[in-house]
Amino acid sequence: MDKINRNERIALLLKRLTDSPGEILTLGSFTEMLNSAKSTISEDIDIVQNLLSKLDIGSIETIPGAQGGVRFMPGFSKGKSLKILDNLCADLSNVQRILPGGYLYMIDIIYNPKIVNDIARIFAGHFFRRGIDYVVTVETKGIPLAFAVAKYLNVPLVIVRHNSEATDGASVNTNYVSGSSKKIQTMILSIRALKKNSRLLFIDDFMKGGGTAKGIIELAKEFECEVAGIGVLIETVEPLKKLVENYMSLLTLNVVDDDEKIIDIKPSKGRM
Amino acid sequence: MDKINRNERIALLLKRLTDSPGEILTLGSFTEMLNSAKSTISEDIDIVQNLLSKLDIGSIETIPGAQGGVRFMPGFSKGKSLKILDNLCADLSNVQRILPGGYLYMIDIIYNPKIVNDIARIFAGHFFRRGIDYVVTVETKGIPLAFAVAKYLNVPLVIVRHNSEATDGASVNTNYVSGSSKKIQTMILSIRALKKNSRLLFIDDFMKGGGTAKGIIELAKEFECEVAGIGVLIETVEPLKKLVENYMSLLTLNVVDDDEKIIDIKPSKGRM
Repeated sequence: MDKINRNERIALLLKRLTDSPGEILTLGSFTEMLNSAKSTISEDIDIVQNLLSKLDIGSIETIPGAQGGVRFMPGFSKGKSLKILDNLCADLSNVQRILPGGYLYMIDIIYNPKIVNDIARIFAGHFFRRGIDYVVTVETKGIPLAFAVAKYLNVPLVIVRHNSEATDGASVNTNYVSGSSKKIQTMILSIRALKKNSRLLFIDDFMKGGGTAKGIIELAKEFECEVAGIGVLIETVEPLKKLVENYMSLLTLNVVDDDEKIIDIKPSKGRM
Repeated sequence: MDKINRNERIALLLKRLTDSPGEILTLGSFTEMLNSAKSTISEDIDIVQNLLSKLDIGSIETIPGAQGGVRFMPGFSKGKSLKILDNLCADLSNVQRILPGGYLYMIDIIYNPKIVNDIARIFAGHFFRRGIDYVVTVETKGIPLAFAVAKYLNVPLVIVRHNSEATDGASVNTNYVSGSSKKIQTMILSIRALKKNSRLLFIDDFMKGGGTAKGIIELAKEFECEVAGIGVLIETVEPLKKLVENYMSLLTLNVVDDDEKIIDIKPSKGRM
């Protein structure tokens, strides 16, 4: 391979690092890829670090020792995260979004790639150090968000379903009680989907009573896995007491009033 | 803003362009963002173009005229696409994947962010010039892929569901007959989900008879929209005659033989 110039090295390093968040890459692997000396690569990585900080999309961590190297940690600064959440609240507060029964129309937001990727990066930054092996969600509305979080954490996505399919193979079926509607629902997951002793991050778009999250914790036990984190885009104020305790929500929905045409939604406090 | 050096400008341009595929960005917008002269930006863009070609992730197109500028077109070279598909076939041909009834276990692949993003980039490159307004899929297994294609085409994702939910608001419900099982299934889509006269790209993980794709074409008519493209990851050889004619598949599955332990899957011919 020909020697390549600094601009190209920087761009290649930036891409290689951000494509594989959390993966420890040795300087040696770069010297080969870029046909340059370690000292040169080391300077390049400082430049990349500085760029990431300007772009505000994450940072580079140096891991010392024989197994050491550098790795990319995704995430935004606190200021950028808050700005994203404020914009989201402004959008979600549009009274046109009020649906009969006091529901909030939000599928245009939770299926929008740009918005979803921004939200996912906030979650990824928050849960990065938890040693997550899989991101788990329950079909359907949280799938795009969970997929994007899985991408930034560089781990596989697992989707729990409500009905079994022949294409899943043998599966584990559990039942859970919805925290809000008290209805019994079924959760189905292929027995091949999770390796034993894995750490799971449950991601969903919405939490009311927390029944789904609790169901995932129970399901995880059947696979001898542990739920190491729970992240939801929106939680409702009511019921105050959820069925799970440790979770992170980005937004808190207080009220959707169909008669008065009021939506009260704010960035969640104390969980960022 | 302080004047920034070339390395930084290149990285910022690369990010700005690849973050918004298809969006026409004027040189003027960059001179402001980067506090540099048009001639400088012009040189920078040449460097970015060269980098994209080295990274093999797409290219930059110049749009002349008063409304002109540059835009990023996602996609791989033909060689890289084929390599990705060959690797995928090798993985899918593992006999451990054979499930009872001759099904193929593939949810670990179609939920894997890295693999899904590669596949999505191939589709995005293929359908980029069709003027797509929305990517549409039917729940559940094709959602990660459809979401990733939507991201690379820089358009919203729309998910058609089998059951209606209060959070969708008023919806259009249609029925369709599965091409393979001949079962009648329901498709439900919120009336707010699509703007009239839009061009849709239907993306799915699997096509056997083509009934789902045909159902989407019918559903699109109810919204006064047009299906301008159909892309599926895997099609089966049988039945030879599908219910839709114009579609692109990446892989063709000939046989999954549970007794002989044979999986025959190859990159599709003539559709790339």
